[in-house]
Amino acid sequence: MVPTSGVHTGDLTPLLAQQGTTKLLLVVLDGLGGLPLAPDGQTELEAATTPNLDRLAREGVTGLHHPIEIGMTPGSGAAHLELFGYDSVEYGIERGVLSAIGLGIELNENDLAVRLNFCTLAADGTVTDRRAGRIPTDLNRDLTSELQGIDAPVDSMTFATDRDHRAVLVLRGDGLDSRIRDTDPYQTGVPPAAPEALHPDAFHTSEVLTIIAEQVHERIGHKHPANSVLMRGYGHPRQLPSMESKFKLRSSCLAVFPMYTGVSRAAGMTVIPTLGPLNEQLTALEQAWNDFDFFFVHIKDPDTYGEDGDFDGKVRAIESVDQLLPRALALNPDVLVVTGDHSTPSTLKSHSWHPVPVLLWGQHTRRDTTTSFGETACGGGSLGYFPARRILTLMLAHGCRLAKYGA
Amino acid sequence: MVPTSGVHTGDLTPLLAQQGTTKLLLVVLDGLGGLPLAPDGQTELEAATTPNLDRLAREGVTGLHHPIEIGMTPGSGAAHLELFGYDSVEYGIERGVLSAIGLGIELNENDLAVRLNFCTLAADGTVTDRRAGRIPTDLNRDLTSELQGIDAPVDSMTFATDRDHRAVLVLRGDGLDSRIRDTDPYQTGVPPAAPEALHPDAFHTSEVLTIIAEQVHERIGHKHPANSVLMRGYGHPRQLPSMESKFKLRSSCLAVFPMYTGVSRAAGMTVIPTLGPLNEQLTALEQAWNDFDFFFVHIKDPDTYGEDGDFDGKVRAIESVDQLLPRALALNPDVLVVTGDHSTPSTLKSHSWHPVPVLLWGQHTRRDTTTSFGETACGGGSLGYFPARRILTLMLAHGCRLAKYGA
Repeated sequence: MVPTSGVHTGDLTPLLAQQGTTKLLLVVLDGLGGLPLAPDGQTELEAATTPNLDRLAREGVTGLHHPIEIGMTPGSGAAHLELFGYDSVEYGIERGVLSAIGLGIELNENDLAVRLNFCTLAADGTVTDRRAGRIPTDLNRDLTSELQGIDAPVDSMTFATDRDHRAVLVLRGDGLDSRIRDTDPYQTGVPPAAPEALHPDAFHTSEVLTIIAEQVHERIGHKHPANSVLMRGYGHPRQLPSMESKFKLRSSCLAVFPMYTGVSRAAGMTVIPTLGPLNEQLTALEQAWNDFDFFFVHIKDPDTYGEDGDFDGKVRAIESVDQLLPRALALNPDVLVVTGDHSTPSTLKSHSWHPVPVLLWGQHTRRDTTTSFGETACGGGSLGYFPARRILTLMLAHGCRLAKYGA
Repeated sequence: MVPTSGVHTGDLTPLLAQQGTTKLLLVVLDGLGGLPLAPDGQTELEAATTPNLDRLAREGVTGLHHPIEIGMTPGSGAAHLELFGYDSVEYGIERGVLSAIGLGIELNENDLAVRLNFCTLAADGTVTDRRAGRIPTDLNRDLTSELQGIDAPVDSMTFATDRDHRAVLVLRGDGLDSRIRDTDPYQTGVPPAAPEALHPDAFHTSEVLTIIAEQVHERIGHKHPANSVLMRGYGHPRQLPSMESKFKLRSSCLAVFPMYTGVSRAAGMTVIPTLGPLNEQLTALEQAWNDFDFFFVHIKDPDTYGEDGDFDGKVRAIESVDQLLPRALALNPDVLVVTGDHSTPSTLKSHSWHPVPVLLWGQHTRRDTTTSFGETACGGGSLGYFPARRILTLMLAHGCRLAKYGA
């Protein structure tokens, strides 16, 4: 019997979730949704040769999802929380915190975590590359070690290497406040913004970050291509109910990038240690298969190529996922979803608000008329255009893990 | 940096809205949605020859919207508030208030505005025409001047002519309350209802309106066809956040009827003075084009013909919009939406709950498979069946005026 009084429809899934023996597999191609190069052309996904995904779309049911709300462009953390069935507004976690958790950094309640990008500044101080040419992770490690020991008025400070050009700064001390302007200007040809306080309580934090930015300049300003950092994603750690307590799912994450292992760990998933490429992630999936109910496989490449404006690269990244899909199918998942966390059209070189194709496949799906996996085809699918948060509900339902609602 | 804590998903658009240079054009064909004359026939929109709308539907993306909620028939004020991105329940403004604002009447906080229709009563007191044959506005003016100076226990009272058979009554005095039964019976062959109090606090107002109704009868009861008035839309003025403060849009309204300029003015839009027909509205649009970000063009005719049960008239009204559309396109809007505020099927002679076709066209739309603009075609569009309030969100997104949400 489900208590309904005062309960909003959006919160029913946890009330109905029940134990089961079915295996649910969620494969996320980061930034999957795209746009064609010419108005009447094909998107990256439609241009890709994907016989396995097409078969799943034909045998399963399809649709388009909006990660947060219709028309909204999400960040990756928020979009993944919704894919895991969490309200990203209620449980919003900033990117700095997600990366820190993903890297295994223990955060205290009042710590402030900041996401950093190593970047390239020109002689006039303007940003010429927001990602410093995506420097190798090893060079990133050299740079963060040069930044350790910067002197600022906090109790302690840690710089940690994420992947490629990404890093994290964790500050510990009294009175740290996350209401700070991003220094990332989100465009080139202009200087970074100052880490201004957006609230009077954040003046101290603004001073601390200004001092740090100056000392970063002193220490690595002479290097190339990574001669500065851009800051954003300021946040304190937050406690989430686990996937197990919320949805009765023993959940596991097979992701390579710390940001995604971070959001998974925040949702109480067990992070299976794995490196890319995808065939190694699949080996880890095979080894973990008996130990969990829910498996989240994250594939970063489509988004990376999309953000770099590389249409063909994104096509190839999607095709290489398709080629390895039979290994995942050989595990006989009861429910399989393939989708993206958001769209990253290579024509826009950024995340976008466009709907994201989704396919749901399993023993109990009722087929629709879709015969291939692509944006236009999924736009005619019988799942319609629906919120990403309902994907987990549908996975639970098709896995016979949701009780009947009402008498 | 977007403040997210404690914010519900439905309210994110104002938090993400940002300045931009793009031009957004919303063209509303009042009562656009329809029904066929025979079950397997075409609707008014489908029967209309609309090569320009069909091209936009082919090049853009389409769907169906529900103005308030699935299955609900909206009034025009509520439906337009939703099209402007406002929650019509939270910001509900009654029709009397909207018409008064649209006519430029200054309302004090406690004033009560009432929407009137001149109507025709038979000798037995039953309503034979709820709109008195849509009398000309000039006759309406003669009638309202005869009603000025009616003696009722209020501080002051104003009758004002709207358009055709429509008028407004504004009462000023202590203790006026809007919880009064509509006297419009919404059908013919029965007498008007009494302006009964729906709440004990409204007894005084009920008495005032009863006295007014009696004196209206004394003053114009001998005339024809307009020998009485029907009352509805009782309300006090309400303050809305402006489109500029809410969505960072300098907004303008190009409407002819006071009810629509009223709801636009309530939303802080600049009302550009214009009269019908549509080509004069377009001239005004062209002249205003450099001065605003958002343009609302309202076209009343399809609704009027629908309410009169004139299928062919509604078809012609839609066709004449299509013929003038190239003038709007020549302004190069970055985002164009063509839709209705609700359906008004001529077979029903009234507003209805049926989904409303919508097309969204612009540089960044991802095409769907729709190749013509009509109810059935839009039902297969990739926007799906979605709330009208998300139309403004989509316009902002496609105009690159929404920041990314979350990390």
